[in-house]
Amino acid sequence: MGVDNNSISVSLEKLERFIAAALRRAGLPEADAATVAGLMAQADLQGSDGHGIIRLPQYIRRIRSGGINVRPDIRVVADMPGMAIVDGDNGMGHLVVSRATELAIDKARTQGAAWVGTRRSNHAGPASLYSAMPLRHDMVGIYFAVGNANHLPPWGGTDMLLSTNPISVGVPAGDEPPVVLDMATTVAAYGKVKAKAKRGEMMPEGWMIDREGRPLLDPTRSDEGFLMPIGGHKGYGLALIVGLLAGTLNGAAMGRDVVDFNKDHVTPTNTGQAMLVLNLAAFGPVGGFKEAVDRLVGDLRGSARMPGTDRIWIPGEQSHARRQRYRETGIPVSRGVAAELDQLARELEIPPLA
Amino acid sequence: MGVDNNSISVSLEKLERFIAAALRRAGLPEADAATVAGLMAQADLQGSDGHGIIRLPQYIRRIRSGGINVRPDIRVVADMPGMAIVDGDNGMGHLVVSRATELAIDKARTQGAAWVGTRRSNHAGPASLYSAMPLRHDMVGIYFAVGNANHLPPWGGTDMLLSTNPISVGVPAGDEPPVVLDMATTVAAYGKVKAKAKRGEMMPEGWMIDREGRPLLDPTRSDEGFLMPIGGHKGYGLALIVGLLAGTLNGAAMGRDVVDFNKDHVTPTNTGQAMLVLNLAAFGPVGGFKEAVDRLVGDLRGSARMPGTDRIWIPGEQSHARRQRYRETGIPVSRGVAAELDQLARELEIPPLA
Repeated sequence: MGVDNNSISVSLEKLERFIAAALRRAGLPEADAATVAGLMAQADLQGSDGHGIIRLPQYIRRIRSGGINVRPDIRVVADMPGMAIVDGDNGMGHLVVSRATELAIDKARTQGAAWVGTRRSNHAGPASLYSAMPLRHDMVGIYFAVGNANHLPPWGGTDMLLSTNPISVGVPAGDEPPVVLDMATTVAAYGKVKAKAKRGEMMPEGWMIDREGRPLLDPTRSDEGFLMPIGGHKGYGLALIVGLLAGTLNGAAMGRDVVDFNKDHVTPTNTGQAMLVLNLAAFGPVGGFKEAVDRLVGDLRGSARMPGTDRIWIPGEQSHARRQRYRETGIPVSRGVAAELDQLARELEIPPLA
Repeated sequence: MGVDNNSISVSLEKLERFIAAALRRAGLPEADAATVAGLMAQADLQGSDGHGIIRLPQYIRRIRSGGINVRPDIRVVADMPGMAIVDGDNGMGHLVVSRATELAIDKARTQGAAWVGTRRSNHAGPASLYSAMPLRHDMVGIYFAVGNANHLPPWGGTDMLLSTNPISVGVPAGDEPPVVLDMATTVAAYGKVKAKAKRGEMMPEGWMIDREGRPLLDPTRSDEGFLMPIGGHKGYGLALIVGLLAGTLNGAAMGRDVVDFNKDHVTPTNTGQAMLVLNLAAFGPVGGFKEAVDRLVGDLRGSARMPGTDRIWIPGEQSHARRQRYRETGIPVSRGVAAELDQLARELEIPPLA
C-alpha cells in the first residue's frame, strides 16, 4: 500500500522478517540474523532511515564478499571490574555492540559505572539503538563510535582522516519519553547524504563543501568534497576525541586505517565502539532522578518561543513519536530502496518485501 | 613591564602569589588558597584568560558575601567501586573538582574506569585543568560541568534554561603534546564574552543573538540576548545532556535551578561536575597507545591544507605552546583587569600584583 507517490508502507514485522531471511540466506545463524534484523528494523521504526534497511544490500554484498565473519567468536579480551574490551572477530556490528552493551550493564550493576569498548567490530546502525538499551534497567547509556568512512578532514585541511564519529546518550525519564541524543559530529551524517542521493534530492547548504571550500549540494557528487564539522574547529575536535576513545583506545581503526565500507566490501573494517553505562541507583533514589528529568523536560518544552517556532523538541522525542506512529501506519520505504530490495530478494531467492 | 599598550606582563609565580594572598585574606586556609591559586594561574598560563585571574574579584566578592564556604567539609556521599559523588559543601569549585578527580584516578587504578560526580560545588575555572590531571598517570580524563549562568535557551525557545555546559577530554600522547579538547557547547563560552567586554572589544557575528534572532555584537549588551549553540539543535542537545550528567544525576542544580553567579553573590550555586577517568593500562600496552596517538597527530598535522591555512592545529596544542611561551615571557594581563586587581589589593590590604 502506498503512503505517497515516492514511498510504500511496510509493517515492522514484515521489515524484520525480510531482513532476517536475507541475513540467514547470506549465512548468519538464525538467532544472530533475528538479532540484527530486530535492530535494523528498529532503526527504520524510529526514522533513522539512513541506517536501517537501506543498508541491507551493502551488508549482504560485504558478507558475500567475505568481508564479514558470519560465525564470529565474539569474546572479552581485556577485563577489569569497571571496563572491558570486546573483540568482535569481524562479526556484524549489531551483535558486537549488543554484547558490549549487555556486559557494560552487568558491570554497572555492581560497580555503579562501567565502560566497554569494542575492536574488530563493524557498522552497527544508528548509535541510539545502543545508548537506549540501558534505559529499561534504569541506567544511562553513553555511546561513541568510529564511523565507517572518512569524510571529514582536520580543521583547515583537505585529507579526509576523520569520520562522522557519532555520540549518543540515553537518559531515563519518568512519565516523559527518555531523553535520547544521537548526533554525528558533522552537520549531517553521511548516511543522510546517501539517503538524499537515493531519494534524488539535493542537500541543503552547510552539509558539505568541495576542496576549494565551496558549498556542495549534489549528493551524488559527495566524492568531490567533505562533510562540515559542527561548530567548525569544535566539531573537528569532538570527532577526533570520539575516534580516540572508540577506536585508538580499543586497538580499533582510526585515522588513515579506517576502511571505507561504502567502496571496499572485503577488507575487515576493525571498527571500534565504546559504551559507558551509569547505574542510576548508585547516584541516589531513581524516582527522584526521573522526576527531576520530567520537570526539566517540562520547563524546556514550556519555554517561550522564537517567532516561527511551533514547538520545542527534546532530543529523542521525535523518534519516540515516530515509533508510535509507524507502529500504526507502517514504516515508509522509498520506492528506490524498495526496488533495490526486490532485486536483492531475487538474487537471494527469498520472498519479496511487499 | 608592558608587553603592549593594552596589557602588562606578569610571571606565573607573581600571579600565583597574588591570588593566594587575596584568597587567604578572604579567609581560605593556606593550603586551600595555594591549591586554588595554582589552578587559577595555570588557567592564565595556558591562555584561558576568561577563567583565570579575571575571575578573582568576583570570587572574592562571593566569599565576602558569604556565598562560598571557606572551610568546607568536602566528602564522599555516594560510593561504589566504579563511581562516587563528592559533596563540596559549597567550597571553592577548584578544591571540589580536584578532589573528585583524584578520587576518580584512584578508583581507575583498580577498576580500569571510574566516574565521580560533584554536587554543592562551585565555578572551578577552565574544564581542561581537570581533564588534564589524569594525564601524568597515563589515564584519560573526560570532564563535564554545568555552567554557572544560563545563557542558552532550548532550540527554538527564548527562556534561558541552559548554560554553556562544557566538555573537556585529555588524552595522553607520546612525544607529542597530549590531545586536550576543551569546548563550551555554545559557539563562544560566556567567559569569552566577559573578556571581550573587559577589553572593550566587539564580538564576532555568530556568538550571540537577541530575542528577535538578530546578531548581537556588543558584549556589554549580553543581557539582551543569548549564546548560540554549536551546530544548532545539536549543541542544544549536547548542553542538555551535559547538564543532566553533571548536574541532575548528582543532585546538583540544572535548568531553572542554576544560580547566575555573575549577578547573585550570595545564594549557594549547588554546581555539579562529573569526571570520568580511563586507565590506559587496562586497555593494553600504554606505549603502543601513545605511539598510535603520535602517529595520528602527525597524520592530521601533515594533511594537505585549504587555501589560506598556514597550519593545522591539534586540540590542546595552542594552549601547550602558550604555556611554554608565557613561562619565558610572563603572562599578559590586560590593563583593565590589572586596574581592577590594584583596586582589589587596596581593599584587601595586600601587596599589588605588579
